[in-house]
Amino acid sequence: MKALKIRKILLVGATGTLGTAVHKALAGRGHEVLTVGRNAGDLRYDVTDPAQIRELYERAGRVDAVVSAAGSTPFRPITEMTAEDYLAAFHGKALSQIELVRQGISRISERGSFTLITGVLAREPIPTGTAASMANGAVESFVRAAAIEIAPQRVNAVSPTVFTESLDTYGNFFPGMPPVPVADAAQAYVRSVEGAQTGQVYAL
Amino acid sequence: MKALKIRKILLVGATGTLGTAVHKALAGRGHEVLTVGRNAGDLRYDVTDPAQIRELYERAGRVDAVVSAAGSTPFRPITEMTAEDYLAAFHGKALSQIELVRQGISRISERGSFTLITGVLAREPIPTGTAASMANGAVESFVRAAAIEIAPQRVNAVSPTVFTESLDTYGNFFPGMPPVPVADAAQAYVRSVEGAQTGQVYAL
Repeated sequence: MKALKIRKILLVGATGTLGTAVHKALAGRGHEVLTVGRNAGDLRYDVTDPAQIRELYERAGRVDAVVSAAGSTPFRPITEMTAEDYLAAFHGKALSQIELVRQGISRISERGSFTLITGVLAREPIPTGTAASMANGAVESFVRAAAIEIAPQRVNAVSPTVFTESLDTYGNFFPGMPPVPVADAAQAYVRSVEGAQTGQVYAL
Repeated sequence: MKALKIRKILLVGATGTLGTAVHKALAGRGHEVLTVGRNAGDLRYDVTDPAQIRELYERAGRVDAVVSAAGSTPFRPITEMTAEDYLAAFHGKALSQIELVRQGISRISERGSFTLITGVLAREPIPTGTAASMANGAVESFVRAAAIEIAPQRVNAVSPTVFTESLDTYGNFFPGMPPVPVADAAQAYVRSVEGAQTGQVYAL
């Protein structure tokens, strides 16, 4: 059996439900994981600010993979949304991750990869979710487009439904939708980092 | 046969290849079309500015449908893109159309509709198109999400590939992709305005 290549991985958003599981899954495979967060982690940067992404990459040095479990968007009825809410969703989940890729191209290894986070709302909407759906759709189409330009580097997205572990908090927003264990979503990151696919949106 | 209901329609972006065809198709069905453009049309407003959309709606009065054929995004290799380019694409094609819907909800008729423009790059990327793909994906997911909140008002998107009429100019960007006559894309607007569907992305 082919020996696993140990990778140096930058994990953005390591403290949430998903980020914690992704950290565990990647570290469990033997990879070296550098965590990045606004207020916690090995490196403290706010990736919604493109200037801080630049600093982050300068500080981190050469890595083999960038994986993101970070993104936030406002949730409210469309009649209560403002233009600023959609702009906040764009900066908070789309542009932040797009900039991780764009600025990362010249900095990660030659066959390195990016793995971004989107979510089921890109394809299955819920009330109050127009900004989140918009941001997720933006990231998924960006991933497909970026993939054909950055090869042999790769980029994929993980697009999970509600996590089994979050049903108590969010379950009422997803009536009848089958939840996914967060460990399964974390495995999609392993699949993206260690596999050879690109331009994929792993919906689970 | 049921008599056609004549609608008062706001057409944003009436002067381009698509807008001209949409104007012809809707007027040909007997609808009253008010054209909106930055530098041409019955009403002169820049819809990339949310404040001007507000003025536009105040000026136009009650309409039955808002149809958009307007949206612009930068095209360049991802390695030459900047954060500002993605922001420009967001404002130029996504937020502009989202705001037409959001601000229009309280202003168009009770069973009125919105029809937005996206494009094939949401699903089939081309080099230099990461910003356009991103904006199109944002609009398509927004449409699916907004539809479930605004009923009985409706919202759909038209997502065409390259126009037969534009092959001389853009054909080399879409090698082997079947083009679509712009008149067919215009019929998708008729289908959205006069039909009863919502949350649809008409890919053609």
